[in-house]
Amino acid sequence: MSKRLTIKEIAELTGVSSATVSKVLNNTGRYSEETKKKILEIVDKYDYRPNAVAKSLRTNKSKTIGVIVPDITNEFFAQIVLAIEKYCGPQGYSVFICNSDEQEEKEIQYLKDLEIKGVDGLIYLAGSNHLLQTRRNLPIVCIDRKPDLSNITIVTSDNLNGGYLATSELIQKGCKNILIMRDHRDFLTTVERHNGYKRALTENGLEVKEENVLHLEVGIEQGKQAIEKLIRAGQFDFDGIFATTDGLAYGAYLALREQGIEVPQDVKLVGFDNVSLAKYNSISSVNQDKELMGQLAAENLLAMIESGVSTTIQHSLTIPVALVSRGSSE
Amino acid sequence: MSKRLTIKEIAELTGVSSATVSKVLNNTGRYSEETKKKILEIVDKYDYRPNAVAKSLRTNKSKTIGVIVPDITNEFFAQIVLAIEKYCGPQGYSVFICNSDEQEEKEIQYLKDLEIKGVDGLIYLAGSNHLLQTRRNLPIVCIDRKPDLSNITIVTSDNLNGGYLATSELIQKGCKNILIMRDHRDFLTTVERHNGYKRALTENGLEVKEENVLHLEVGIEQGKQAIEKLIRAGQFDFDGIFATTDGLAYGAYLALREQGIEVPQDVKLVGFDNVSLAKYNSISSVNQDKELMGQLAAENLLAMIESGVSTTIQHSLTIPVALVSRGSSE
Repeated sequence: MSKRLTIKEIAELTGVSSATVSKVLNNTGRYSEETKKKILEIVDKYDYRPNAVAKSLRTNKSKTIGVIVPDITNEFFAQIVLAIEKYCGPQGYSVFICNSDEQEEKEIQYLKDLEIKGVDGLIYLAGSNHLLQTRRNLPIVCIDRKPDLSNITIVTSDNLNGGYLATSELIQKGCKNILIMRDHRDFLTTVERHNGYKRALTENGLEVKEENVLHLEVGIEQGKQAIEKLIRAGQFDFDGIFATTDGLAYGAYLALREQGIEVPQDVKLVGFDNVSLAKYNSISSVNQDKELMGQLAAENLLAMIESGVSTTIQHSLTIPVALVSRGSSE
Repeated sequence: MSKRLTIKEIAELTGVSSATVSKVLNNTGRYSEETKKKILEIVDKYDYRPNAVAKSLRTNKSKTIGVIVPDITNEFFAQIVLAIEKYCGPQGYSVFICNSDEQEEKEIQYLKDLEIKGVDGLIYLAGSNHLLQTRRNLPIVCIDRKPDLSNITIVTSDNLNGGYLATSELIQKGCKNILIMRDHRDFLTTVERHNGYKRALTENGLEVKEENVLHLEVGIEQGKQAIEKLIRAGQFDFDGIFATTDGLAYGAYLALREQGIEVPQDVKLVGFDNVSLAKYNSISSVNQDKELMGQLAAENLLAMIESGVSTTIQHSLTIPVALVSRGSSE
C-alpha cells in the first residue's frame, strides 16, 4: 500500500526546501534539472500518487490542447468549439481557444504561443488549406480544412451532399432558375457545396448558368446588398436561392422582404449550417452536426495524444448532413 | 551600435551547441539553469536584440493573457472577447480563451492551467462574484463580475441606467403594467437592471408589484415558455415587458406572436444587450458597448502587466449604455 507523501516529507528525503519541491511539482519558478530529477526519483520510489502537474512533468503531457478558430463570434464555430470542450473536459483535458480572426499572421503567432506553452495537440477549425507545421510535430486534427500535408485527420460535413440536398429541395418545390450565393474563397467546404448544387441542377435537366453564381464575402449585410443590387439592376429572374451560409440566406431574405418580394411564394430559399438565424426566421437550412464534428475531432486528437502517435495515415471523417425544411421553401 | 548575433555566434561564444541555444531562446526542450544563464549573459552583453521569446525568458513575461468566459456561444460574450483580442493583438499579446461553461470546477481547472502555462494576466468575464485567487498573484481585470476582493479593476455597463432607460421607454409609450423578465441569479448586472426598472416605475408613480417579476433561466426557450404559461393561466394583464437579456425578450416575442397578441399594439417590449436577435427582429434593446468593454478591460490589464503591478486600488469603470428604439416599443 502506498502512502501519499507530503511536500515536507519529499523535501526531507531530497534535502531541498519545501518551496523548491512545490516549485518542481507545480512547474513554476526556477529550479535546476538536477533538483527536478532528484525530486521525481523520490516521488517514483515512494509511489507518490502524483497530481496532474507532477504527472505532466514526467510524461511531458500537459493535458491541454489548443483550438485555432477563425471567428468565435460565428455561431457555427462557437458550437463546434463548445462540443470539443464538452468532450475534453471529462477526459481531464483543458482547451485553450485562440481566435485567429482569419489572419494567417495571427495564426502563426498563436501556433507559436501554444507550442511554447506546451499543449499536447491542436485542432484547426476552418481557414486556408495551407497548414503551418509545428516544430515539435504535435498531433493535429483539422475540421473543415484540408491541408496539403498527407498525415492529418480531417473532420468535415458531407458538403457535397448538403449542396445537392439544398438545391434538390428547391427544384422539387418548383424552382427553375436557382441562384447560388457562395463564399468567394475556394475553401474545401464551399467548393463541395457548389459542386452539389451543380450536380442537382444537371441531374434534373436544368442549365448551370455562370451568371447565377454570386461570389460574396460572407455576412448578412453582404448577402442583403448582393440581392438588392440584382433587383435594382432589373435582374430579378430567379425563383430560388441556395446560400452556402445561413448568414447569406438571411441577408437575401431581408433584401427580398424590403423589395416586397415574398418568400416562399415568389422566391424560395435554403441556407446552410442550421444556426439560430435560420431557426428563428423560418429559413430552411442544411444542418451540420456541430456536436458530432467537435466530438469526433477531439476524440481523434486525444487518441493520438494518449497513444503517443503524432502522425497518422490521412483519413477523412465525413459526417452526414440533413435538410431541415422550413417556411422559406414551402 | 549593436549587431544582431546569430544563434551560431551565441553558440560559439558560450561553448554550447546551436541546438541548445535555440532551445533556450525558444524555451523548448530541456537544458540546465546554468546553460540558460550563460546564454542570457551573452545575449545581454552583446545587446542581442531579442525576439519575443528570449525577452519573455528574461522578464518572465510571456506576452499572453487568459480570458475565462462562461459561454462562448453567447454573442454578447463573444463580441467582448473579440474586442479584447483586437486590442491585445497589436500590442503583441496573445489571448487564450477558456470556456468555463458556467461551472466553478472548470473555472478552477482553467485558472490552474493558465497559471502553469505562465500567462501574464487574466480577464474574467461575468460569472459569480466569488473570485478565485491565483497563486502567483496575477494581474486580474473583471468584466461584469464584482468579486469580494478589494483590489480588482472592474468593467461594467451602467446597468442601473440601462434598466431605467428600458422601463422609461415603455412608460413613455403608454404602458401601465410592466413585467420584468430577469435572470433568476443575483448577479451584479441583473440586480442593477432590476433596480433601474423599480426606480423608473416609482418615479412615474407606478406600483412595483412582486407578481410582475419573472425569475427565469436565461434563454429563448425559457422566455417563451414563461410568457406562454402566464397567458394560459389567464394572467394576461400586462401591456409592457422589460427583459434583462435579448434572448428572453425574443422568447417573449415568439410566445406573444403565437398567441395572436400583437407587438407593439397589445404589448410593448424592450430587451437588453442589443445583439443580433434584437437587431434582426426589430426588438428595442439597451445597447452595451461591447467593443469598449473589451478594450478597456484589456487596456487596464496590459497596463498592470507592463508596469509590473499585480494589485490596484479597486476601481470600477462604468460604461454608458443607450436605448435603441425599434418597432417593438413604437
